[in-house]
Amino acid sequence: MSTEQIQSCMEECLQAVMACNHCYQACLEEYHAGMLKASIRLSRECAEICAFAAQAMSLNSSYAKQICMICAEVCEACAQECRKHDHDPCQRCAEACYSCALACKAMAG
Amino acid sequence: MSTEQIQSCMEECLQAVMACNHCYQACLEEYHAGMLKASIRLSRECAEICAFAAQAMSLNSSYAKQICMICAEVCEACAQECRKHDHDPCQRCAEACYSCALACKAMAG
Amino acid sequence: MSTEQIQSCMEECLQAVMACNHCYQACLEEYHAGMLKASIRLSRECAEICAFAAQAMSLNSSYAKQICMICAEVCEACAQECRKHDHDPCQRCAEACYSCALACKAMAG
Amino acid sequence: MSTEQIQSCMEECLQAVMACNHCYQACLEEYHAGMLKASIRLSRECAEICAFAAQAMSLNSSYAKQICMICAEVCEACAQECRKHDHDPCQRCAEACYSCALACKAMAG
Repeated sequence: MSTEQIQSCMEECLQAVMACNHCYQACLEEYHAGMLKASIRLSRECAEICAFAAQAMSLNSSYAKQICMICAEVCEACAQECRKHDHDPCQRCAEACYSCALACKAMAG
Repeated sequence: MSTEQIQSCMEECLQAVMACNHCYQACLEEYHAGMLKASIRLSRECAEICAFAAQAMSLNSSYAKQICMICAEVCEACAQECRKHDHDPCQRCAEACYSCALACKAMAG
Repeated sequence: MSTEQIQSCMEECLQAVMACNHCYQACLEEYHAGMLKASIRLSRECAEICAFAAQAMSLNSSYAKQICMICAEVCEACAQECRKHDHDPCQRCAEACYSCALACKAMAG
Repeated sequence: MSTEQIQSCMEECLQAVMACNHCYQACLEEYHAGMLKASIRLSRECAEICAFAAQAMSLNSSYAKQICMICAEVCEACAQECRKHDHDPCQRCAEACYSCALACKAMAG
């Protein structure tokens, strides 16, 4: 990976952190009938691994690729769940997560 | 603070992290009628600041006291919310948080 | 604070995380004669509190202002240390930290 | 894994976080001739992934096993580096990390 590609993957991760946290909070606020339980669970987990992956890349960690591989998987799960909900923060979260998953897969090689 | 007191405050924080995360997850699983929304929100925030405070102490950070002061405040808010709920994980979380709040206040001086 | 100001403060924090981590790693690589010991210590601490502050803001935490207040203080200490060193990553870190400190102070009100 | 095994793996992780952070800080304080550069780098990374793994387990994350697998690998690398140094905090860090690596491998299955 070139420095630019790593930089861009970090930025995708940070965008996903923000989108996931926004989604998490909006879902928690509007929660009813358990409909958004899976979004709440996954958007928290996804925010945390995206932040962890961004940090591993920024520290030039030898484990960054392995972490990005898990990050891609969590991002996809989160995106698949969130895109089901007709709810703006969920839709934006799904988009950010799909985009981050792509960048992380490229990073993981 | 003696090394033993700092060590013990770190351990209180780590106990609170575990109790908060357990509470968070149990509340999310059993969520209905929005009754546990505040517990979910607070137990996540509380787990995160307790983990952050433990880390600051373990790194002998110059900012550990200030972080422990906020940590004590979040622990109290979480404990006050959680003890309202007749739900085992909430009750155990409340206890761990009260105990952590005391240790953090002593640490903050 | 308007949503735009909070958004912009989060972005300053994330920029500071990246600059601090880059500085940390460059200093560790080039370390000699203990000259960069304080930069290494502070850039790690600063990256961690900036990430924590960004997360608190993105979760709309009630404690975000208090966390931003400590974050501003750590950013200033890190910037003051790093600007002493005639070393590109330190200079860029100092700049990002000063800018983040300003945004965090405004956020803390 | 039984609940007791997961609990015990979380505790190994938290012990390793504390030992790594103590080692990090002692190495940074006593740093000379670049001898401890690798310990500093690895003990930070190891503390961070151990904390992340403990959190994933405490949240009952679907990704906990994969995270524990990477955690075991980082713990082993950290232990191998740290046991080379005739320095108390390094020796204690190496022990905690070996023990955590075993628990994480069992967890990862």
